[in-house]
Amino acid sequence: MKEKFKDSALSPKERAEDLLPRLTLREKVGQVNQKLYGFQSYTCNGEHVELADSFKEEVEKWGGLGVLYGLYRADPWANKDYTTGLTGVNAIRAYNLAQHYVLEHSRFGIPMLMSSECPHGHQALDGYLLPVNLGMGAAWNPKLVEEGFKVVGEQQKEMGVDFALVSMLDILRDPRWGRSEECYGEDPYLCGQNAAAAVKGCASAGLEVVAKHFCAQGETTGGVNASAARIGERELREIHLPAMKEAVKAGATGVMAAYNEIDGVPCHANEWLLKDVLREELGFDGIVMADGVAIDRLGMLTGNDKAANGAYALNAGVDVSLWDDSFPHLEEAVERGLVSEETLDKAVLRVLELKFARGLFEHPYLEEKPLTEYNVPKTFPQSLEIARQSAVLLKNDGVLPLKKEKKLRIAVIGPNADALYQQLGDYTPPLRDGVGVTVLDGIRNEFKNADVRYALGCTICDDDTSGIAEAEKLAEESDLVILALGGSSSRFAGAEFDTNGAAIVGTKLQMDCGEGVDTSDVRLPGAQNELANAVFESGKPVVTVLISGRPHAIPEIAEKSDAVLWSFYPGPWGGTAIAEVLSGAADPCGCLPVSVPRTTGQLPVYYNARASYDMMRYRDLENTPLYPFGFGLHYTTFKTTVKDGTPEISIATLENGKAHTVTCEVENTGSTAGHATVQLYIQGVSGTIVRRVRELKAFEKVYLQPGEKKTVELKLDCDALSIWNRKMQFAPEESKVELYVEESGSKVWNGELKITK
Amino acid sequence: MKEKFKDSALSPKERAEDLLPRLTLREKVGQVNQKLYGFQSYTCNGEHVELADSFKEEVEKWGGLGVLYGLYRADPWANKDYTTGLTGVNAIRAYNLAQHYVLEHSRFGIPMLMSSECPHGHQALDGYLLPVNLGMGAAWNPKLVEEGFKVVGEQQKEMGVDFALVSMLDILRDPRWGRSEECYGEDPYLCGQNAAAAVKGCASAGLEVVAKHFCAQGETTGGVNASAARIGERELREIHLPAMKEAVKAGATGVMAAYNEIDGVPCHANEWLLKDVLREELGFDGIVMADGVAIDRLGMLTGNDKAANGAYALNAGVDVSLWDDSFPHLEEAVERGLVSEETLDKAVLRVLELKFARGLFEHPYLEEKPLTEYNVPKTFPQSLEIARQSAVLLKNDGVLPLKKEKKLRIAVIGPNADALYQQLGDYTPPLRDGVGVTVLDGIRNEFKNADVRYALGCTICDDDTSGIAEAEKLAEESDLVILALGGSSSRFAGAEFDTNGAAIVGTKLQMDCGEGVDTSDVRLPGAQNELANAVFESGKPVVTVLISGRPHAIPEIAEKSDAVLWSFYPGPWGGTAIAEVLSGAADPCGCLPVSVPRTTGQLPVYYNARASYDMMRYRDLENTPLYPFGFGLHYTTFKTTVKDGTPEISIATLENGKAHTVTCEVENTGSTAGHATVQLYIQGVSGTIVRRVRELKAFEKVYLQPGEKKTVELKLDCDALSIWNRKMQFAPEESKVELYVEESGSKVWNGELKITK
Repeated sequence: MKEKFKDSALSPKERAEDLLPRLTLREKVGQVNQKLYGFQSYTCNGEHVELADSFKEEVEKWGGLGVLYGLYRADPWANKDYTTGLTGVNAIRAYNLAQHYVLEHSRFGIPMLMSSECPHGHQALDGYLLPVNLGMGAAWNPKLVEEGFKVVGEQQKEMGVDFALVSMLDILRDPRWGRSEECYGEDPYLCGQNAAAAVKGCASAGLEVVAKHFCAQGETTGGVNASAARIGERELREIHLPAMKEAVKAGATGVMAAYNEIDGVPCHANEWLLKDVLREELGFDGIVMADGVAIDRLGMLTGNDKAANGAYALNAGVDVSLWDDSFPHLEEAVERGLVSEETLDKAVLRVLELKFARGLFEHPYLEEKPLTEYNVPKTFPQSLEIARQSAVLLKNDGVLPLKKEKKLRIAVIGPNADALYQQLGDYTPPLRDGVGVTVLDGIRNEFKNADVRYALGCTICDDDTSGIAEAEKLAEESDLVILALGGSSSRFAGAEFDTNGAAIVGTKLQMDCGEGVDTSDVRLPGAQNELANAVFESGKPVVTVLISGRPHAIPEIAEKSDAVLWSFYPGPWGGTAIAEVLSGAADPCGCLPVSVPRTTGQLPVYYNARASYDMMRYRDLENTPLYPFGFGLHYTTFKTTVKDGTPEISIATLENGKAHTVTCEVENTGSTAGHATVQLYIQGVSGTIVRRVRELKAFEKVYLQPGEKKTVELKLDCDALSIWNRKMQFAPEESKVELYVEESGSKVWNGELKITK
Repeated sequence: MKEKFKDSALSPKERAEDLLPRLTLREKVGQVNQKLYGFQSYTCNGEHVELADSFKEEVEKWGGLGVLYGLYRADPWANKDYTTGLTGVNAIRAYNLAQHYVLEHSRFGIPMLMSSECPHGHQALDGYLLPVNLGMGAAWNPKLVEEGFKVVGEQQKEMGVDFALVSMLDILRDPRWGRSEECYGEDPYLCGQNAAAAVKGCASAGLEVVAKHFCAQGETTGGVNASAARIGERELREIHLPAMKEAVKAGATGVMAAYNEIDGVPCHANEWLLKDVLREELGFDGIVMADGVAIDRLGMLTGNDKAANGAYALNAGVDVSLWDDSFPHLEEAVERGLVSEETLDKAVLRVLELKFARGLFEHPYLEEKPLTEYNVPKTFPQSLEIARQSAVLLKNDGVLPLKKEKKLRIAVIGPNADALYQQLGDYTPPLRDGVGVTVLDGIRNEFKNADVRYALGCTICDDDTSGIAEAEKLAEESDLVILALGGSSSRFAGAEFDTNGAAIVGTKLQMDCGEGVDTSDVRLPGAQNELANAVFESGKPVVTVLISGRPHAIPEIAEKSDAVLWSFYPGPWGGTAIAEVLSGAADPCGCLPVSVPRTTGQLPVYYNARASYDMMRYRDLENTPLYPFGFGLHYTTFKTTVKDGTPEISIATLENGKAHTVTCEVENTGSTAGHATVQLYIQGVSGTIVRRVRELKAFEKVYLQPGEKKTVELKLDCDALSIWNRKMQFAPEESKVELYVEESGSKVWNGELKITK
């Protein structure tokens, strides 16, 4: 039989179809298998890199390897750092060693694919990190996100990564959830635009993106990780599916199933979701990957029968496993008739086709050359720029911007003032010495004339108040206080980890956020409120800087501070970004990607509830969030004028691809340059279903010099005006729609659009 | 044309079908119309009762009257009391006057039906009141509930009521909800058993029950009243539909649609719910009534077109309106073609048939005779007995039962110690002087040898702490403190009301619970925690008695009290019941019908979450509720022995009507008589869907003298073992099921049942 699969002139599909039938059942199972923890697959000693026996055994067992996860992963869970992990040419060597071993032990020389964590940057030594997704969401600038992910992608490409596992699909609906930071925000449109940007950024660097998690993981029950999404189909479609739709349109070639169930059906066993919706409706034709050990968790359906778990997932549409011990039992599953070999073949074919498409058969090895140094802000300023644009100014009594010229005595106080790892978020590698700037460092750099002193005050989570007195004293001796509070998802402070790498909640845990670290109380943890009160007692002007992975309820702090600046884990150069915003060297232009609650008991506070929910109407609390979605202050002022000449559009016009355009002219009427974010919301006021109070449908961020004007066209196309109607079809309806234009969350204009037959 | 409808020998159906075509469109609309507030339809001055012009105009307008709501309703909203409202023979006169006016103005002499509020008793002057539903749920004794509702029904029957509007379908899923008190609890089985009991009780008195609310109103978003139920169909079917199924089986002839929407579709516009599920699946053939002004709220679909609102509801399956201004536009709706006259005819036919069936054409008037006096506990002890059995003892360090013989100095302290209306719940009439016993009264009656003194301490909701010092002093001077805290749904303290009678939240509101009064914080309101701390400071033994309409988070109070007794609004004789339980004259035998949370941020804490929800696993809190569902302590001890000889049953056997029986022998091994509540829970550990952590499937309460034994058979039939499977069919599956027997929430036994093909 002619080995057509070796002919690189043929299409990947033809080559894969030729190769597939040559494989044994076991070899096929090996191709959809991603059981190994890559970071355990080698040892590294100086220049010497060696493959682990566990790696060799796995490759030999299956006569090859489907996908290798996390060869470069470095964090306390992986137990890899700059002495034990892979950097520079060692990384290349390790990759080549592993690939070589795979090729040598595969009868047909099938190379492995490699996947790598990339929720907001590359979780590898020297990995380029961006602010967490919630920060990227706060920038309201998908173009910038695309640029950031392009840099991350280029670094991964250089290191042989095929699949970047990128958080982009989760929607923040309950801030108790520790993975809130991994969401671009609470809104499906804002998240969808950023998801598309992340895909495009990675893809333009030549990477395959595995978009995660599919689907509705952000829904949760009570904010608890991986818990039940109890929602109905319309809620699922309106809130949780749009980001996937955008990711597919942008070219995502992989998707990771989510841990959670939806109304009783685990995503990993949900054929309707993974086939009917994902492939048929959304047109996805890539690879569906399992989440870590998630297929084993199907034991709750099968009574812990591993072969049955694997069959369940494969039948439902999962193509590739992750760490589970269920897909390795697929031979048995086929033999027991739990899944057909034809079904397995489809998954194997997708893997093989991708391996051909990526040219791995022709070029399986990396060239041994020095790696680019990415962690240099001058060369790769994208992360810093996102950090700047994601800082949200929520209150300013006039204390900001701080004058750089003045010889101020500045007290920098608080657990997030000088804690680099606490500004990074979860899923981050150890940083190399010299990389990264804390808030304290940033302020010292930015305010060279000032006398900058520091006090910790308290840690993030401990109740220990012994450091507060010193902090209060420092405040009293200063002209002004920068009070840096918030949360931490840093795994670098003694966390323990579950089999899937999630942190385990325990008494010593110094994280209040991150995967597995959910909180029942969204106030600031530990002694931070006491610290804040002590600082306020000093009577000095206080600028509160919040660095966190979720919105915290801070009503008293907001009231007593002279200014509040919120920065969702802004990444390594967050300290620079924050200091520049404080000085006015950068303009504050972030807008909240999530509503900030007054108390935990007020949840949910997302702005886009259905209009039948009399939002937050409690006997004992004001019925608004502390700060609303979309909100952010500036140093300058903008005047936005709206022209909306045609308050009527027909369904036929929409279906023909035309859109209703709202034209806004934005003018910088202040004295400093700045970014304005023009936001268009709609509210359907009739139709066959209950509409939402507001829905974001378009936005644009523009940079304007003082006196400068720009025109922004916000478009409402057929998709934007379609709803999941009573028959669960997505279409526009003859109805009335209220339109609202806001600039950074401040009302500018409203009008009405009539959708006619 | 022969007037067959006048022939009482014919069936109601035949008569109704004969009458229907004789009616004009307007007369038909009049028959499905329930716009009037009955309590505004008359004036009463001494012996003189007169019909209001508004009543006469409405009757004349429609040439008759479909249903009259709330003629006897008396409460601050209705603005009726013992001087202005209807009592004794005046009630009969008013009814007869109204009925006479209707008959006189109906071309065919069609009588009116009358509906009356009955969430937990008759909301009329001299109305017989039961504990609120949450209290009834805590009794775990549906037989007793049936007896209670029989008395209520007899009183209503005597007064000419046709429809008793009875809360019985709402399931308590978020205790922030002010209507928590109207739920029998958080569990669908417990609620279903009590719903059936309420229906049977009323029906045995000759009343039609309108079961409310259909469906999923207890789901809520954030505990806010009438808000969106965002759930999927399986959650709906598993949690919210079973009570309706039981109510239909028990003979409910009416159902009230719920205010809320489910996944975007308002219940009043939900044809699938009101027709496919209710009529086709559940076999309901009674009348679907709207909730108050709920049809007007469909304006959110129609853009506030009243005729369209009415058509929407009628098309969806609503038969009879309530207060709305939409059904009165049904003539216009028919003329505009929004709904067919045939659809209207179906609703009218149901109303007419019921009027014939109830014999109203033959006997439209009530006999003018004195009404039975129901508020005499010796004659009608049912309410008191439910109150006794619903008191839940949650903690007892040994201080209880209190010795009656001793000459104790007892301090009775707190806002719920001597506040009769605060122990009644929402939807209650003013009581006649002399009716009802407060906790203070009850203790004085029960402990005649004791020196009982009282201090208010603070009110329910105010922050005013000025009375706390006096209370603390009283505590210090006493041997023991009974600290009566909790909530209030009393409308008798200056509340204002919405068009549907729900309380309006405002600064002066002295309710923390009840319809429209939702709370963002489930801790005790006002200064109660401060009062409690002051009392604990006295160092005296403290028995905390909680009277409330929802579970409150009371971790500190529970820790510091020597005993905790919880009584969900126990009704007029609650004070007697509580005092008897404190003394041991009655045994504490209530079990929690709802999980008690530690904090608001821990919500949801219902026990029966799906097994994929790692319940309450937060970094900052213990992962259990403060007190679990089903829990209650006794003064005596029980030994429960379980025999479960056949750990296997086939699907065929189940489908043939056989059940798996778990036989329990309960022995009172203590020295006092008492009630044991044997509870059987299951947990499915395999199947096509994710099962719940636990599901209550059977229970029985038995009364045992010291040394006495009784055998309890708990049965698992086909329904109990069926699940809403992957295909959304209700059937048993080949699977394993863990069984757990508990006595009042304490573990007794567990085993495994295999369901075979």
